[in-house]
Amino acid sequence: MSSATYYRTHHCGELRLSDAGVRVTLAGWVHRSRDLGGMTFIDLRDRHGIIQLAFNMETQALLCEKARKAGREDVIRVSGTVTERSSKNAHLATGEIEIVVTDLEFLNHSETPPFTMEDQTDGGEELRMKYRYLDLRRPFMQQKFILRAALIKAVREYLDENGFLEIETPNLIKSTPEGARDFIVPSRMQPGNFYALPQSPQILKQLLMVAGMDRYYQIVKCFRDEDFRGDRQPEFSQIDCEMSFVRQEDIWQMFEGMVKHVFRKLQQTELPDFLRLPYRDAIARFGTDKPDMRFGCEIKELNEVCTGSEFAVFNQVLTNNGLIAGLVATGCAGYSRKQIDSLTDYVKAPHRGAGGLIYIRYEADGSVKSSVDKFFSPEHLQKILEQAGAVAGDLLLIVADKTSKTRKVLGDLRLELARMNDWIDPAAWSIFWVVDMPMFEPDEETGEPIFAHHPFCSPHPDDVEFFDTDPFRVRAQSYDLVMNGNEILSGSIRIHQPALQRKIFQILGFSEQEIESRFGFMVNAFRYGAPPHGGCAFGLDRWVMLMAGGETIRDVIAFPKNNAGKDLMMEAPSPVDDAQLKMLHLDIIPTENKGSA
Amino acid sequence: MSSATYYRTHHCGELRLSDAGVRVTLAGWVHRSRDLGGMTFIDLRDRHGIIQLAFNMETQALLCEKARKAGREDVIRVSGTVTERSSKNAHLATGEIEIVVTDLEFLNHSETPPFTMEDQTDGGEELRMKYRYLDLRRPFMQQKFILRAALIKAVREYLDENGFLEIETPNLIKSTPEGARDFIVPSRMQPGNFYALPQSPQILKQLLMVAGMDRYYQIVKCFRDEDFRGDRQPEFSQIDCEMSFVRQEDIWQMFEGMVKHVFRKLQQTELPDFLRLPYRDAIARFGTDKPDMRFGCEIKELNEVCTGSEFAVFNQVLTNNGLIAGLVATGCAGYSRKQIDSLTDYVKAPHRGAGGLIYIRYEADGSVKSSVDKFFSPEHLQKILEQAGAVAGDLLLIVADKTSKTRKVLGDLRLELARMNDWIDPAAWSIFWVVDMPMFEPDEETGEPIFAHHPFCSPHPDDVEFFDTDPFRVRAQSYDLVMNGNEILSGSIRIHQPALQRKIFQILGFSEQEIESRFGFMVNAFRYGAPPHGGCAFGLDRWVMLMAGGETIRDVIAFPKNNAGKDLMMEAPSPVDDAQLKMLHLDIIPTENKGSA
Repeated sequence: MSSATYYRTHHCGELRLSDAGVRVTLAGWVHRSRDLGGMTFIDLRDRHGIIQLAFNMETQALLCEKARKAGREDVIRVSGTVTERSSKNAHLATGEIEIVVTDLEFLNHSETPPFTMEDQTDGGEELRMKYRYLDLRRPFMQQKFILRAALIKAVREYLDENGFLEIETPNLIKSTPEGARDFIVPSRMQPGNFYALPQSPQILKQLLMVAGMDRYYQIVKCFRDEDFRGDRQPEFSQIDCEMSFVRQEDIWQMFEGMVKHVFRKLQQTELPDFLRLPYRDAIARFGTDKPDMRFGCEIKELNEVCTGSEFAVFNQVLTNNGLIAGLVATGCAGYSRKQIDSLTDYVKAPHRGAGGLIYIRYEADGSVKSSVDKFFSPEHLQKILEQAGAVAGDLLLIVADKTSKTRKVLGDLRLELARMNDWIDPAAWSIFWVVDMPMFEPDEETGEPIFAHHPFCSPHPDDVEFFDTDPFRVRAQSYDLVMNGNEILSGSIRIHQPALQRKIFQILGFSEQEIESRFGFMVNAFRYGAPPHGGCAFGLDRWVMLMAGGETIRDVIAFPKNNAGKDLMMEAPSPVDDAQLKMLHLDIIPTENKGSA
Repeated sequence: MSSATYYRTHHCGELRLSDAGVRVTLAGWVHRSRDLGGMTFIDLRDRHGIIQLAFNMETQALLCEKARKAGREDVIRVSGTVTERSSKNAHLATGEIEIVVTDLEFLNHSETPPFTMEDQTDGGEELRMKYRYLDLRRPFMQQKFILRAALIKAVREYLDENGFLEIETPNLIKSTPEGARDFIVPSRMQPGNFYALPQSPQILKQLLMVAGMDRYYQIVKCFRDEDFRGDRQPEFSQIDCEMSFVRQEDIWQMFEGMVKHVFRKLQQTELPDFLRLPYRDAIARFGTDKPDMRFGCEIKELNEVCTGSEFAVFNQVLTNNGLIAGLVATGCAGYSRKQIDSLTDYVKAPHRGAGGLIYIRYEADGSVKSSVDKFFSPEHLQKILEQAGAVAGDLLLIVADKTSKTRKVLGDLRLELARMNDWIDPAAWSIFWVVDMPMFEPDEETGEPIFAHHPFCSPHPDDVEFFDTDPFRVRAQSYDLVMNGNEILSGSIRIHQPALQRKIFQILGFSEQEIESRFGFMVNAFRYGAPPHGGCAFGLDRWVMLMAGGETIRDVIAFPKNNAGKDLMMEAPSPVDDAQLKMLHLDIIPTENKGSA
């Protein structure tokens, strides 16, 4: 009970049959009302629940008349007595009681809202975003924010207990190189100069380690001015952590412990220890570094068993050291021609770019039928099926291409098959580490080795010798945590030796002058006794989304932006007046094509 | 103990005599080292404390030689045995023991730092800011951040327990009118349009109340592009709170409870109930709305007793309905002419602007001497002293001017006297509410009534009738919390009725069109059932500063900016390259006088 006793003595959701006879005052929103002639009922709603109010026309005609005027979403305050219901509602926590009302006050009126306040609302996405304050009034949405707050609370509990200090880092910083584009903020006091909004507090948290803060965390907004591919937001929240005097093992134990703590608190679940999957295995077995392991259907490599045919596609791939590999779609031998065509279109989509999809049906009766019958004997096809681990009734789908493409395409196809066949148990959790990430990846255009992470990531000490001779072999001390096919954590052991850091900058192609102007303060800091350190950052929005059952991170962000970076409720961004621009010494360059930059 | 067992088994500060005989591994910084010939001692430091390491030249010559090479701030890892010291150090928590070291590893070297890592460092402000990562390494500074984290933790505990939901609001929003200048962020995707960084989440938290979130809090960065008068920062942290279905009393109880909880947790102190001081009384008694009540010396009004003299200054003030008032400086009758002259200069300083300072000494022997002896009989002066409550040995200091100026000047003078006479007990706390703030204040130039708060603040229901007839009489439902002379909380009951909100906007001079373009989404929201609500925001940095004993809020902000808005460590703000500006469709207007905007 709160100290607020004028407006309410209780919340709507907390009263029970054991409170029968208690005189209470409640306040909230009119969720529904039903006028049954003799009786009028109102469902009163607040964040804590819904309770039925009863007004009796016979005994209190004036009051009942007043109650009949209550419209949807009006704000009211009532006093009355908790009374056992004659017809109970088992679906409602307060369903055994109602409030027999003696006083009713209208605190505010509501126009008819543009959509219903129900779980399954009739409002479309755009409308719900424009009226986000009403969208959030739906209990369905409120539950997500209650869960978000509970998750954050559990995280803080764990980190506080483990000696992490919450330290705030600034939002107006110097532009840092994290791969994405910075949002910049013009300085009025230093005309022509700009702050940048942080893409992450990466450098600052490393400096906090140099400052001897030992263990740091912060739940912090990060900003990236990217084009909005997929489910991204220009600002998002990170659980940002860093530790001194640690190796990878220490970090894995610490944050595996944190995730387990959160599941214990929020779901009363004891998670099993997390698998540590080497990056190379993840790619080979699932075609991605963030596999969803709630189902099997791993990639089966078939190069060896596919030799010796007249099938030119295979032979060419074999000659070029490519990869022939397949997925066993369990129980899918009966797929129609149309279904298989649709999967073929799926893998041939421009952003996947497979040349085609080969199928081998392993019919229930043991016979075999395939799209390459004319190149392979039935015995050979049997061997391929056997190698892939297929049994009668299965469908084997094969891609043959450059190794990386075969894997990528089959990784996507694997997810598509799971969706089509409902292979994923929505109540299951698949959480594991991906470790031994590569230090370099091939540049998409040139194939040259480029850094796979930010320039502060430490190479595996055993692999430094391959830096020049075999860069793709160099492992970084870098790791991800994957949850149901989403990367929810990324981290690394950082470089703490000034000489190695400088070497990495040089490999990245920075001149001495650039190193000084962009990272000077960091390189300087490392000259004064930087401790060994490492850490990670969790994508908070995505983690909450997975646990709250949302479909996009917009569902768990109070006031999100749309794909064009617009807040439809506030109508931001918006023009500013000329005086303000003048004060900032800025001019807008007119654009011919105003819609696109 | 952490799971990190390669680098360390314990922290430096946690070992005690009871651990004697235990084999430990420690890591940290070389705080000091002493080479005594036969023995070398190193004080090893981490965030948790300092411990002495002992190296014996006789028994382990090689190791001792190595230890002698350790310079200040080198990072080392040692293993050894906890051993009772022969000469104990009572000033150190670990002072009864030392580690007899058997292994020493250098983890990193440090150049000679630019200042010492001591509480009383030899580094000036600018140097400490440039090397903030070293400044923060000083235990003296680390304690402040440990306290800051503990304060935030206690705040969250209390708010979580009281049903507040932590909800994050966006940083890229629409420009809102909170009195100060917005920082703006150019949008690349919407050329010519800008986001604003929030001066506070005021409107958004009110919309969360409209959304039925009931109780909200957030520890949030706020941004104001102001010229840096006094101890301000362009970005600062607020504990931002809002509650639905409350009146002022509910809010006062809730947040008084929170402050008491924090003091209980951090200082094991039970604070007494907070006084509620009406704004008018604060101004009349102390000349300010944020008095420091750790000492007395209240303003004594003397108009009545000062009538009937030939002193033109008084008579003129009396004729013009001004105020003659004074402060009794207890025991200061012996002030020298020079001391009184210096106080006179103080009140006559341009930004105070008093015409002069009148004194009356009440000598220890009961005689009276004043700067206005020729206008007043000794008996009259005695009467004035009596009215002011002075006793023998006191000094009465009088200002006569317009009422507001007399109060303001004496309010300042009161603080100056306290500083000069050491009247303030640094261990004392003075915490109280200032309530019944006025709705309007006179415009500094025109004297016309203008709003004293933001346009969402609700007037006192009893005073609405005076809106047009006597606006300065209208009280707002607005309140501050004052701690040792600093405003650390400000809040109000908000308007929840759309018609009243519209009226206030009109009084503020907004046209219908401006209301629509600037506040349209808020006015709209209020049409759909806004609950009665109110809240407050704490200035977190200032509160932490007061409890951590800092002199400026820069002491409790990890990476603060200087008075020119610069981060001296990162060298931000800085120029950005032309390509980036072009992408934002922006041009910089060259300035003739580059230093000032």
